[in-house]
Amino acid sequence: MLQSRRKIRTEEARSERPGASGAEAFDRRPKLDFDVLDGHLGYFLRRLQISVFKDFISTLATLNVRPAQYSALVLIGANPGRSQAEIGEALNIERARFARLLDELERRGWTQRVAALRDRRSHSLFLTNEGRTALMTIKGLAARHEKQVSRIVGGTRRQKLMKLLKDVQPQARPRS
Amino acid sequence: MLQSRRKIRTEEARSERPGASGAEAFDRRPKLDFDVLDGHLGYFLRRLQISVFKDFISTLATLNVRPAQYSALVLIGANPGRSQAEIGEALNIERARFARLLDELERRGWTQRVAALRDRRSHSLFLTNEGRTALMTIKGLAARHEKQVSRIVGGTRRQKLMKLLKDVQPQARPRS
Repeated sequence: MLQSRRKIRTEEARSERPGASGAEAFDRRPKLDFDVLDGHLGYFLRRLQISVFKDFISTLATLNVRPAQYSALVLIGANPGRSQAEIGEALNIERARFARLLDELERRGWTQRVAALRDRRSHSLFLTNEGRTALMTIKGLAARHEKQVSRIVGGTRRQKLMKLLKDVQPQARPRS
Repeated sequence: MLQSRRKIRTEEARSERPGASGAEAFDRRPKLDFDVLDGHLGYFLRRLQISVFKDFISTLATLNVRPAQYSALVLIGANPGRSQAEIGEALNIERARFARLLDELERRGWTQRVAALRDRRSHSLFLTNEGRTALMTIKGLAARHEKQVSRIVGGTRRQKLMKLLKDVQPQARPRS
């Protein structure tokens, strides 16, 4: 049942490549066959998203701000008083997870939930003064991160990707 | 401190748009200002990745297979006997999380870890017969998902995105 024959072949293949040079010498293991993964857009989106997020997290490590927290701070800052439901939906964050994210931002003294005038079950979101100050610093680091993304991805390729990705989701675009 | 003035302005804006029609009528709330998020590649990658993954999860709901499990099954199936470390790294899954993912796949009877001949601390990964059978069904559903992605994203746009995303990460491509 275990394919030991194929396994041996794999180990032979490893020793068959003594002349690997340059990038290949960096990793002598034979490349993996990605099979049908090579045809899935989701797979490639996820790969790049993970490496972009890793850069974001390490660039903002001193402030310990994660991408979802950053997105929430930016949206609350640019749209003060909008409801928790609207901001959460716009960021595609599931309701309970968004509530926990806001708990964390409040604990840090950056945001406030206020019961809405018209419907007290609904909450309006605001930055505190401290939150506005923090967001300025955070935006500076996020801009540095984006320059790094541009270097990693390539400036032209980044522009092309942005255009294509924005076209897919017109509902997510800001009003111009 | 709370920006109630701006909040009121927002509520006025809401009532200023009685003539919204078509897609706009679907949601009468004024659009949110996405501010600097509009300039972050990571934000747009994440948005599309989430909606593509949602489609994958719902298409494979009957089998309860998540994208990371699918990727692992495909790689193990196409590269029998390769090490746990190699497969985990190729999928960019953190070591402990990948171990838990393999626990789950073993619990379902789909994969096996075998101590490697040369280094018993290292594990070689294999599909079981049951795993190979399950993977055929799973691949069928994943292909259906990918057709849906093509419809949602647009066939041409999907091709362009795939090409750009593959070019960014040559190390992730299968050997041709």
